[in-house]
Amino acid sequence: MTQHITKPKGFRSAGVACGIKQSGRKDLAVVACTRDAAAAILTTRNQVFGEPVRYCRRVLPGGFGRCRAVVINAGCANACTGRAGYRDAATMAHQAARLLGTTANKVLVASTGVIGHRLPMAKIHAGITAAVGSLGRGHDSAALQAIMTTDLHEKYAVARTVIGGKTVTVAGMVKGSGMIAPSLATMIAVLTTDLAIAPAALHKALVAAAEGSFNAVTVDSDTSTSDTLFLLASGQAGNRPVAAGSAGYRKFLTALSDVCGRLARAVAADGEGATKLIAVTVAGARSAGEAEIAAKAVANSPLFKCAVHGGDPNWGRIATALGKSAAKVDPARLAIRIGGIVVFRRGVPTPCNVAALRRKLMGKTVAVDCDLHLGKGRYTTWTCDLSAQYIHINADYHT
Amino acid sequence: MTQHITKPKGFRSAGVACGIKQSGRKDLAVVACTRDAAAAILTTRNQVFGEPVRYCRRVLPGGFGRCRAVVINAGCANACTGRAGYRDAATMAHQAARLLGTTANKVLVASTGVIGHRLPMAKIHAGITAAVGSLGRGHDSAALQAIMTTDLHEKYAVARTVIGGKTVTVAGMVKGSGMIAPSLATMIAVLTTDLAIAPAALHKALVAAAEGSFNAVTVDSDTSTSDTLFLLASGQAGNRPVAAGSAGYRKFLTALSDVCGRLARAVAADGEGATKLIAVTVAGARSAGEAEIAAKAVANSPLFKCAVHGGDPNWGRIATALGKSAAKVDPARLAIRIGGIVVFRRGVPTPCNVAALRRKLMGKTVAVDCDLHLGKGRYTTWTCDLSAQYIHINADYHT
Repeated sequence: MTQHITKPKGFRSAGVACGIKQSGRKDLAVVACTRDAAAAILTTRNQVFGEPVRYCRRVLPGGFGRCRAVVINAGCANACTGRAGYRDAATMAHQAARLLGTTANKVLVASTGVIGHRLPMAKIHAGITAAVGSLGRGHDSAALQAIMTTDLHEKYAVARTVIGGKTVTVAGMVKGSGMIAPSLATMIAVLTTDLAIAPAALHKALVAAAEGSFNAVTVDSDTSTSDTLFLLASGQAGNRPVAAGSAGYRKFLTALSDVCGRLARAVAADGEGATKLIAVTVAGARSAGEAEIAAKAVANSPLFKCAVHGGDPNWGRIATALGKSAAKVDPARLAIRIGGIVVFRRGVPTPCNVAALRRKLMGKTVAVDCDLHLGKGRYTTWTCDLSAQYIHINADYHT
Repeated sequence: MTQHITKPKGFRSAGVACGIKQSGRKDLAVVACTRDAAAAILTTRNQVFGEPVRYCRRVLPGGFGRCRAVVINAGCANACTGRAGYRDAATMAHQAARLLGTTANKVLVASTGVIGHRLPMAKIHAGITAAVGSLGRGHDSAALQAIMTTDLHEKYAVARTVIGGKTVTVAGMVKGSGMIAPSLATMIAVLTTDLAIAPAALHKALVAAAEGSFNAVTVDSDTSTSDTLFLLASGQAGNRPVAAGSAGYRKFLTALSDVCGRLARAVAADGEGATKLIAVTVAGARSAGEAEIAAKAVANSPLFKCAVHGGDPNWGRIATALGKSAAKVDPARLAIRIGGIVVFRRGVPTPCNVAALRRKLMGKTVAVDCDLHLGKGRYTTWTCDLSAQYIHINADYHT
């Protein structure tokens, strides 16, 4: 029963089973603040997005404002369900608001699971009632379990910092295992803090922290309809509100980036069927944007991911993936390292210790470093290997 | 012993085993014309390309000219091998030229297999000697087997047409199973015809025929370093040379497009681990370019390909893949059909016969049709399902 998202002052959580998941596992979570919190959200860039995403965007048109709670269910994404689905999302918020003694525009919602099915609203209603009734500080594991789908591990993180003489806590939990290639957001993550900060500044920090963390993860290049990242700040740490760009803001951003980075890497490591976490860094690109394009071309290459899964130092697939990308690549300047061992430099393979290379590939974490030697652009992305288990999970999932 | 590439007049072929493949299977092929043929090539757009590609581009700087023969080996791609690798490619051409009584600039070369290894030149030399010594019209199967790597099936096609009162034959063979996402070319294909046509017009026809065939196939979104498409025209059909745009040219283009389309679909159907051929058509896009982007987003989605493998009518993954693409998509206008059965229309799921839908997904060929209802752009791409066998093949391949 690890505590995480309720470690910052002012938060309570709950997770219950209300019968949406056929397995009977927990499937509805509520994270609530004792008072209205500053709130910021980032949502999927997919043009096909779930109705809960539509609802949240209407409640927080600029991506920030003040909210009391987040309600999340797993087992049904409430996406591709049209206007009726939108009403269901609004009803979820309304039901929770009534029980929490607030209004529906102070409650955010998210749903994850199968696309194209309506939510079972009677079950949802019973689940919300049970969850709100059991809100407390000892249920973070239950809340996290309730938002998981094919995830194997509970993914959470906590960081602390001191701002204006007060201890500020930042915490987060995340679900996400397949359909992972975020664009401005990730799967579903709830982040909490007790920092006092205005909603607009909170949003700015969230955008900045997501860039090198959640936006840098890919499992399978598929961007979900339901990606939503919530950040609630209770303001109960006792600090004087921090302004964007101030020293206090920068300390908060460091802690938030730390939490987001740990959660994002945990998502990659817990990718469907994954046995290894892979960090692909491209340096020396003409720009940071080209470095990202090149790094993600490698991280999304199924051939590369299969080779890492097999512990095979097949660096030709790394060179090939870089070369097919829209980023400028010159093989005559390219250098590739696997686990720190140079395998290719200036257009030709480097004699290297294949046994040592295989050992590097056997580890739980594999680092691939590519230097294009064309400029100063640099980017790191996280992914996982591709195993037969990914196929089994995704050929059998659903209906 | 099916005859195909030597059916057009003037061609001979051979395929031998010279010890490049560890399995001892055939690994070196020669396709030769009795006289200099008009020749056209298309090569990979990958920035990391094999040394044989560099050699062919130097021999035919504009992509066309006159050539006598093509020499191809499997088992080693001669890519990422630097200047020494380039000299090996040139030596291959030179050795074949000497035996064929021509000059090295009349011989094209291609290599496919593992990246980053030098060619075993003594074996190559012995192989070329044996192959040139056995050139004939009964060895097309041997030649095709010699260019295959993880391919399971021999992929070839023959078409006939009458031009200027003369029967013209067009034939082709292709290898390609993984690392398939062509850009202006495909794996390695050799096409032959006995049409009389100038090299520049031949090249124009090849570009046109490849667009809707080889360029429309994807197995795993990975573009090979070695993709090369060769077209040789012996001119021995007896027709008066056809000019680009003429009625004869158009008839030839129809036959050539037919052969290319059949070979390209055979590549998708024989994708690594494939059990089904999938045709994804996007209609109603704002432009043909956006239709291609949207169709390939679906065809490259591992989640979609897994669902088809499992016979699962999980159309949510089709909607999600369309939505993440750079093409404009409006879910409220979108319609999706699987095997002709409408599953989604105007933002909501359509009640449909799930049993019938599952039967459609059990077939060897699955058609997915998406109408964006935004314009007239249309594109069809071919791919295959993603199975655990793909992982096994690619986690174990190599070194």
